[in-house]
Amino acid sequence: MNLKLVIEYDGTDFCGWQLQPGQRSVQGEMENAIAALTGQTVRLHGAGRTDSGVHALAQVANCQLETKIPPGRFAAALNPLLPSDVKVLSAEAVSDSWHARFSAQGKVYVYRLLLSPSPRPLARHRAYRLPPNLDLDAIERALPLFVGRHDFRAFAAKGSSALTTERTITRAELTRRGEQCDLVFSGDGFLYHMVRIIVGDLVSVALGKLTTQDIASALATGYRSRPPVTAPAQGLYLVEVIYDDEPLC
Amino acid sequence: MNLKLVIEYDGTDFCGWQLQPGQRSVQGEMENAIAALTGQTVRLHGAGRTDSGVHALAQVANCQLETKIPPGRFAAALNPLLPSDVKVLSAEAVSDSWHARFSAQGKVYVYRLLLSPSPRPLARHRAYRLPPNLDLDAIERALPLFVGRHDFRAFAAKGSSALTTERTITRAELTRRGEQCDLVFSGDGFLYHMVRIIVGDLVSVALGKLTTQDIASALATGYRSRPPVTAPAQGLYLVEVIYDDEPLC
Repeated sequence: MNLKLVIEYDGTDFCGWQLQPGQRSVQGEMENAIAALTGQTVRLHGAGRTDSGVHALAQVANCQLETKIPPGRFAAALNPLLPSDVKVLSAEAVSDSWHARFSAQGKVYVYRLLLSPSPRPLARHRAYRLPPNLDLDAIERALPLFVGRHDFRAFAAKGSSALTTERTITRAELTRRGEQCDLVFSGDGFLYHMVRIIVGDLVSVALGKLTTQDIASALATGYRSRPPVTAPAQGLYLVEVIYDDEPLC
Repeated sequence: MNLKLVIEYDGTDFCGWQLQPGQRSVQGEMENAIAALTGQTVRLHGAGRTDSGVHALAQVANCQLETKIPPGRFAAALNPLLPSDVKVLSAEAVSDSWHARFSAQGKVYVYRLLLSPSPRPLARHRAYRLPPNLDLDAIERALPLFVGRHDFRAFAAKGSSALTTERTITRAELTRRGEQCDLVFSGDGFLYHMVRIIVGDLVSVALGKLTTQDIASALATGYRSRPPVTAPAQGLYLVEVIYDDEPLC
């Protein structure tokens, strides 16, 4: 059986999604729990790798597994064997050719800013704190620059192994609720650190350290004169992986 | 100088507000940081004691302190000496007779429910998870029972040392946003565990284990036939302490 799992995790105490020797990864905790439940050593394929500190409301993964546990009961059976910072929200059987990463049509990320003059304990692992007078209008003016098909090579961390650096962003929006400000990005795929570098640029624009022309130039030429500022991991949430006929909105 | 401090904390890793020998309390961390900053041993008076796991968005405290640091700069000076799960949001000088607890006119608490079929890692220390089909209408019907002046002795943990068990609740409301459901309680004071016992009763009503008549009877007589269910600490937030002419809404 090819099993599709939807997974939520608090990324704070993980080295990230991917297995790392001697470190605590989401993938590792998941594979260990599946082995404890079924007696089988599986390889779990995640839709995307998230870094240490990055959260997921709905990471998606799949694995080949022989089990008599019906898919509809798999989450309830597995969750007691998982630590409290990672749980399976749902499980379903999918066709053998289905793959969490290669079948994905797109992803949605949210990056959360908290506009506060003081450090805020309850948000310390959940948002990127910035001054209350941050120029959100400047961010809103710059956001549409990213929408469309672009070569995002100037928005990827060095060492990215992607074959092509062209990606399409279909949605880049800001929503504010009190001191909390969420930046939503939908796209067909994202390069390594791409969302965090885009947010770093947007914040630089809001702080007057970068112009929208600088961003337009980096998108047009693939180069930037100064190395990018990467916004911190703790504000980033993988909120959805899009498959099949689901509209990419 | 009598210094008033507004404090936010994530209650997860504290034994609670109050100093406990050999344990990590908010009061203890605060007093240690103040001693490190000013060289003075102070006694910090909190507006209310919160239990382990209970959060505060705006706990209020005061202490007598001789310092050349202007009140307006005190938070910024103290915060680097505090751990990341407790920070001062603001500080101001107040009259010598002012006391965080005795001058308080009222408090506002929020209790957060999360209606989800699965355990949810990002909310595990932040909300009380309940089934999605929870009867919120039943909770809304029961909430007005608590509003007004009542003898809340049947809604206090044993061992409460309050001189009187009469309290006035001015507001008891439910607001829902998606799967998140907040119960807001404003009142002139709350007995030990009072909000958590009220929430325990409301959830019991929603689950059909208690009737509104049982609640009305416990409020009228001060007695209940079965010991109360106390809702877990992690859903509770002290959100405001009300002073002086500020309206109690």
